Order: sequence, then structure tokens, then C-alpha cells
Amino acid sequence: MDTAASIAQTPEPPYYAVIFTSRRREGDRGYAAMADRMIELGSGVDGFLGIENTRDVNGLGITVSYWRDEAAIMAWKRDAEHVKAQQGGKETWCGDYQVRIAKVERAHHGP
Amino acid sequence: MDTAASIAQTPEPPYYAVIFTSRRREGDRGYAAMADRMIELGSGVDGFLGIENTRDVNGLGITVSYWRDEAAIMAWKRDAEHVKAQQGGKETWCGDYQVRIAKVERAHHGP
Repeated sequence: MDTAASIAQTPEPPYYAVIFTSRRREGDRGYAAMADRMIELGSGVDGFLGIENTRDVNGLGITVSYWRDEAAIMAWKRDAEHVKAQQGGKETWCGDYQVRIAKVERAHHGP
Repeated sequence: MDTAASIAQTPEPPYYAVIFTSRRREGDRGYAAMADRMIELGSGVDGFLGIENTRDVNGLGITVSYWRDEAAIMAWKRDAEHVKAQQGGKETWCGDYQVRIAKVERAHHGP
């Protein structure tokens, strides 16, 4: 999806960010399709503001999704299909990961 | 530097994150060397907690640096060599970028 490969257009702060950093194990094993599906699902959640997603050639990936408030993050966290993907993430795809919930207080952009 | 290619080991929240998302123009033009130098410099600033950095094959990059507090971010923002790199970023490297300052409130990791 195009939304995952560009800089998110977000409103003026404050809003929330979920920073998901992960190291993939070797091989795709359905990861790309799952990731696309999660972006499609997540972007339909009320309060979703945008997403930025990159993964380098060595397998380190950072996905930052942006949300209106914590309630929107919680709604997405509890989505049934997303819960299943989180399980898959633990069992199949990610060797290691870190999730951070952060309140965006200031932002600026260029050029 | 190895610190840029792994998941940052950060303390318990709260702490701060600077989310820098950018789209590179074609070609390196000294970018990689500058980025390495900035990581080396930034990691020497009092209050620096860690950094995560990825760039995908299409040129979209996300760098998240973590800081003890806003004072540490401000000190780094004003570093002379860093200011010069920010200028270079505007003029030479980045077609488009977004910087967000966020307070990390919660975090969890796995497996």
C-alpha cells in the first residue's frame, strides 16, 4: 500500500505514535502479505492518522503509526485479526522487537 | 556504527523520542558518512539513550533517537556540527522530511 511507503501527513500535535521496531528472521514466510493486510486494517480504525514503514536490507524494520488518542490505539490493539498477527509475530517472524507508545508534542517538516 | 543497526536498549519510560522520517533524493552525495558522523556525535551527548535507523530500497528512511529529557534534545539540536548537517539535509539530501518530538509513556518488548 502506498500509505506505508511515504511520509505520513499528520495534523498538528498533540497526537500519539506507536513506534514498532523489529528484527526479522531470515525469509519472508508470509510477512509482507500480513504487513500489508495490517496496514489496510489499521488504517480503517477510527482515529488512525497515518503510518510510516521502512525495513533495511539487514532486516531491521521501523514502523511508526500515528493515532488521535490512546483510545484509538487500544481499539486497534484489540482487533481480532491484529491479535492473531501479533501472535504470528512472536512465533514466526520477529527475532526481537520493541513497541513504544509516545505522545507527539511537537512536529516540523520541510523543505 | 553498530548502534544504528539494532533495536535500542532503553530504560523504563518516561523518556523522549525524536522521530525523523525522510525521503532521500537519488544518490549518496556523502549522506552515509554524514549520518554515521551524526550518530557518533549524538551518542556522546549527555542524556542520549539510543538510536534506531533504517532506510528501505526506495529511499524512505526512519531514524528514531531516544533521550532522557527535552533538555538533552535541545543540547543536541544546537550542536554546531549538527546544525551544519541539518542545513545540508535541507539543501542536499532530503527531498522531504518530518521531525516529531514525542514523550514515550509506555514500552514493551519481546520475545
